[in-house]
Amino acid sequence: MENLPFPRSEYERRIDRFQESMQRRQLDALVFTTPANFRYATGLNSQFWESPTRPWFLVIPRTGSSIAVVPALAEVPMKQCVFGSIESWMSPCPEDEGVSLLTSVLQRLPNRFGKIGFELGRESTLRMPILDFFRIRDNLTSFQIVDGSPCIWEVRNVKSKLEIEKIRSICQLVSQSFEAVPSFARQGMTEAEVGQRFTIDILDRGAHTIPYLACASGPGGYDQVITRGKNRTLSEGDVLIMDVGATIDGYHCDFDRNYAIGNISDAADNANEAVWNATNAGINAARPGAKVSDVWRAMMRVLEDEGMQSNNAGRMGHGLGLQLTEPPSNCADDEAVLQPGMVITIEPGMEYQEGKMIFHEENIAITEDGMPDLLTVRAPREMWRVR
Amino acid sequence: MENLPFPRSEYERRIDRFQESMQRRQLDALVFTTPANFRYATGLNSQFWESPTRPWFLVIPRTGSSIAVVPALAEVPMKQCVFGSIESWMSPCPEDEGVSLLTSVLQRLPNRFGKIGFELGRESTLRMPILDFFRIRDNLTSFQIVDGSPCIWEVRNVKSKLEIEKIRSICQLVSQSFEAVPSFARQGMTEAEVGQRFTIDILDRGAHTIPYLACASGPGGYDQVITRGKNRTLSEGDVLIMDVGATIDGYHCDFDRNYAIGNISDAADNANEAVWNATNAGINAARPGAKVSDVWRAMMRVLEDEGMQSNNAGRMGHGLGLQLTEPPSNCADDEAVLQPGMVITIEPGMEYQEGKMIFHEENIAITEDGMPDLLTVRAPREMWRVR
Repeated sequence: MENLPFPRSEYERRIDRFQESMQRRQLDALVFTTPANFRYATGLNSQFWESPTRPWFLVIPRTGSSIAVVPALAEVPMKQCVFGSIESWMSPCPEDEGVSLLTSVLQRLPNRFGKIGFELGRESTLRMPILDFFRIRDNLTSFQIVDGSPCIWEVRNVKSKLEIEKIRSICQLVSQSFEAVPSFARQGMTEAEVGQRFTIDILDRGAHTIPYLACASGPGGYDQVITRGKNRTLSEGDVLIMDVGATIDGYHCDFDRNYAIGNISDAADNANEAVWNATNAGINAARPGAKVSDVWRAMMRVLEDEGMQSNNAGRMGHGLGLQLTEPPSNCADDEAVLQPGMVITIEPGMEYQEGKMIFHEENIAITEDGMPDLLTVRAPREMWRVR
Repeated sequence: MENLPFPRSEYERRIDRFQESMQRRQLDALVFTTPANFRYATGLNSQFWESPTRPWFLVIPRTGSSIAVVPALAEVPMKQCVFGSIESWMSPCPEDEGVSLLTSVLQRLPNRFGKIGFELGRESTLRMPILDFFRIRDNLTSFQIVDGSPCIWEVRNVKSKLEIEKIRSICQLVSQSFEAVPSFARQGMTEAEVGQRFTIDILDRGAHTIPYLACASGPGGYDQVITRGKNRTLSEGDVLIMDVGATIDGYHCDFDRNYAIGNISDAADNANEAVWNATNAGINAARPGAKVSDVWRAMMRVLEDEGMQSNNAGRMGHGLGLQLTEPPSNCADDEAVLQPGMVITIEPGMEYQEGKMIFHEENIAITEDGMPDLLTVRAPREMWRVR
């Protein structure tokens, strides 16, 4: 197991926690098909998920050890991971792509509750053709398939100390890259060019992958924060934002920084200060026992006082870990309660004039004793300046 | 539209082709939820898909223009794309995450066949919670939901000249990076270190993203080709393989190269030559009108003659485009017929001794006039050497 980022005991504890949750929720097994759940439970480090041809299944029974039901070419890589036993089929085989094998494995499981949880619900997807899922569901005579997502998120939402240190390491690394941007970004470069140099800088410092980069700019603010950098040239008075999800050992950071291109308007400066203050309010509100809606309200109060016109993001932060975003969502009606070990983003933002947005973002871990643990290096109060 | 990689007419032609296929297959609409289909139809360039919180829907009716049904924060980015109209909801909203809005949009569509195609079948997934899909299906009173994947793959499998040039550009770029590896890789480095340097080199030459990198090594061959590089140190007699999917404007290359670390065994050299010859046989067999199973057989004949023990990959190549892998699969029982404009990988490999594999891969476009168009720079007959 020398290639896994955590000791075997970390993975065993995760399976224990899933099994406790299954027992409580009356499930006989969980079945995973997606990269983050697979990696969480076994340590598997592959990007083979990019190819949709072959589904992979991990079966975690309510008691006993897990069973990987995978295409034959996955046998050797799986053996470097933590799991119980392996069943494989020769793939591709579109007419029976693991369907009958998975069905027979599930049929043999000890049956107490008659229910097996798949990734059906909140912020979950099934990585397999739905028609094949229907075949499994219809062939399973002794179990009903139900939603496993409450069980999955309950376990994954509370991170171990080892997980938090992974997230801290990528947050610290990317914080350094953000600080280095003014050393290479210049007026006259395009968003896309700055984004590319930034990506290389992050990899150079040791990040493993960069699954997410958004890059946007405009005079005094930007009009959206979700597309890749365009061929728009940066010029005097622009605000540039980059928002990045980079990983170490699969664990993401997700935060952004703003840059003033030359001198920006007072209005942009004031909006930036307001959002910086809202971030402070969000961090301060993120105490164990508080709800994420309290964190949202603390930020919203500052933004509304400071002239917010609108915010179409619908939330101001979210969970973070093996995925760029995980539940909960910091919004008005998410009643999730913060617990020690949860890692969330604090992400206030506003449109202060039409088409001019300013967003900020930091990543924090909720601690036992009150103040959250800031995993990122706090953004400067005034934007960094690009010459 | 100055930020789209193709002229508007390219996207319009794609919608026309979907609509012709829908007409033939008696569908009233197609609904897309996944990144590659969305990008193919609209040009959208975002990695926001990494966040599973919010589904995005694109509705292509049998006649008329397409309708984006997206979260509010997607409105501005969508406006930079090619589509007809937009409907949005404030998200996150887990209790109704676009479900009722999409349902009402679909209910209003002209109904001739009573059928709407979703991404349900071969090599397709739905990027939304399945429970929400069930709600849409159950609320749709006037349409039945059926599998749209035959329609999707029929259209996407045959690339335009502009698409082929995009794939060629990333293939050529990565070919240069592969050739540069011996200039920085050294015995004593780990797989992970070489992989990281290689990634940076690819980005430095102008690739946009690198969603896939597999890196493996072992004495005289490797025992799998799908995990990320490990902390294994490269030493005399090893063979190192890197297999990479990098993109320009969303279009992937997918090919690999092998490196001899110092001097490798004659057996490894011979296996390498055999797989190189099998690649030639595969390329030569990839004529319009041939089946992909013919291409598979041409390669298999060479490998079996040359002492192949086994190959657990189950196929020797596949389609390529906006996804790292697309149908068809070059295997014994895939009867897909090659047509001009199809882009496929030629990917023979074998285990020539237990635990010692050699794989090769090239990317080609099928042409009107016989010989395929080689998009990659052909691998050298003898492996490049790392000192």
